[in-house]
Amino acid sequence: MDNENQSVFFDHTIQLRVRYSETDQMGTFYNSRALEWFECGRTEVLRALGIPYSTMEIEGVFLPVIEAHVEYLDRAEYDDLLELTTRILFQGRAKFRAEELLVNTVTKRVVVKGYTVHAFVNVNGNAIRPPQWLVESFYKAIAERKLEQK
Amino acid sequence: MDNENQSVFFDHTIQLRVRYSETDQMGTFYNSRALEWFECGRTEVLRALGIPYSTMEIEGVFLPVIEAHVEYLDRAEYDDLLELTTRILFQGRAKFRAEELLVNTVTKRVVVKGYTVHAFVNVNGNAIRPPQWLVESFYKAIAERKLEQK
Amino acid sequence: MDNENQSVFFDHTIQLRVRYSETDQMGTFYNSRALEWFECGRTEVLRALGIPYSTMEIEGVFLPVIEAHVEYLDRAEYDDLLELTTRILFQGRAKFRAEELLVNTVTKRVVVKGYTVHAFVNVNGNAIRPPQWLVESFYKAIAERKLEQK
Amino acid sequence: MDNENQSVFFDHTIQLRVRYSETDQMGTFYNSRALEWFECGRTEVLRALGIPYSTMEIEGVFLPVIEAHVEYLDRAEYDDLLELTTRILFQGRAKFRAEELLVNTVTKRVVVKGYTVHAFVNVNGNAIRPPQWLVESFYKAIAERKLEQK
Repeated sequence: MDNENQSVFFDHTIQLRVRYSETDQMGTFYNSRALEWFECGRTEVLRALGIPYSTMEIEGVFLPVIEAHVEYLDRAEYDDLLELTTRILFQGRAKFRAEELLVNTVTKRVVVKGYTVHAFVNVNGNAIRPPQWLVESFYKAIAERKLEQK
Repeated sequence: MDNENQSVFFDHTIQLRVRYSETDQMGTFYNSRALEWFECGRTEVLRALGIPYSTMEIEGVFLPVIEAHVEYLDRAEYDDLLELTTRILFQGRAKFRAEELLVNTVTKRVVVKGYTVHAFVNVNGNAIRPPQWLVESFYKAIAERKLEQK
Repeated sequence: MDNENQSVFFDHTIQLRVRYSETDQMGTFYNSRALEWFECGRTEVLRALGIPYSTMEIEGVFLPVIEAHVEYLDRAEYDDLLELTTRILFQGRAKFRAEELLVNTVTKRVVVKGYTVHAFVNVNGNAIRPPQWLVESFYKAIAERKLEQK
Repeated sequence: MDNENQSVFFDHTIQLRVRYSETDQMGTFYNSRALEWFECGRTEVLRALGIPYSTMEIEGVFLPVIEAHVEYLDRAEYDDLLELTTRILFQGRAKFRAEELLVNTVTKRVVVKGYTVHAFVNVNGNAIRPPQWLVESFYKAIAERKLEQK
């Protein structure tokens, strides 16, 4: 990931297999699937942070995507096992950013790099500040991981 | 369509093109797309009936699919222009059925035959009778079409 | 599964989570996703049988869906953990059938029941008999499992 | 579109409706659908240019996406009628860029802005120069449109 010097982030890696439904007639995954995989990465990084996204929505906090960027660097075929690392960074007070790196475990090559930027909104779609419990869970998880890594 | 002798139905035909995102590595459309196309057919037949589905949901009437059946009879490739005929039939008091026939305008062959069965439910998912305004719109549209066809 | 008395079959169970991309505005999974999940089940049951589908295609054996049937019995929401059991049965000489049962591990209720029927075809789409190596792998896996279960 | 001063481009506008399958539980379209709609825009702008993409692939010219960028500016709901304008620009000798602007005809607001960048590759995925017939069709279509607009 590029932003090593951004101070506060949390990483999580998952594995997923390319589904047949995700391929297209070029024989590789269709381009929009990358954004669907990014969502799988965010779901699991938030669970690892102790703030599952399903809980967030029940609490009235929604994180719609406001920007997405994807670079397609290599192929990935049906049934290839991929490894997706998602890094969450807080930006300012009302956004967060998820950086994504997708590696093909078969070829060891980077398949996709990208990111999504998210707003915090309430159920009516109005921008809100991230609630205190969420920010605290985030920093607590980061602190605990640093301890683990020592 | 098979059920010519069922008394009350309403047909509507639309055209759609196979999107690249709908193909898979076999070079034809991926099987689940048929159900997505069936939905396009239902959307337009309901609009033609004067009861757009978006309005129905605003009025608190939802039509979840409770059964689906699809027979795959021929290929359809990226950019092929398809013709989808949807026939709506009321069944008993709390269900309706949509029969679907998808023809490839390039090859003139039937690509897919199938049907979906739908319940009428309210916003909480509880079964309801179809509201009177909906039933009336349905029979009015059928009566008007019969007049047109004379 | 219904066909307990059909003599030759092979079962396999996987878990999957409902992705946000698989939901729709009714707040449950969109109906066509069931067919995409069925494919995940087939991919893993074939791997468990020792005949991964990706290998089958490389060997020139394709298994297009020729018929699909789905009954929708209950809701499943974003992030719900589902358990999908796929049972493979050979039918006659040139078809196989996959029966699917999807249970919500959160509610313990059956979400979806269904099946798909598949033809064996070559790369040109012409019907073929299932190759000997494939049939043998299938019966070998069944025999081994019966030994295990004793 | 931003790049009014880039000299050579070709625009085309299509309409499409948000499908139910394209919504998610937030009640608006799921983020990855934008990339699928961009593809619909490219398919039709290439047809308007006289070089349908399906023909290009038959001639051995493939245009995989190598970069995609999307800004999500507003909601679009099931059945909303959208207007998508795709502008094709050639960049250097082996890439082209498609800029996309998606407007909600119901609210008149911009829903999505974005672009995709494409490589020209052959059937083996190796970079190629755009074939002469393709470049000529492109400039011919631009010249004809300028004549029409006088």
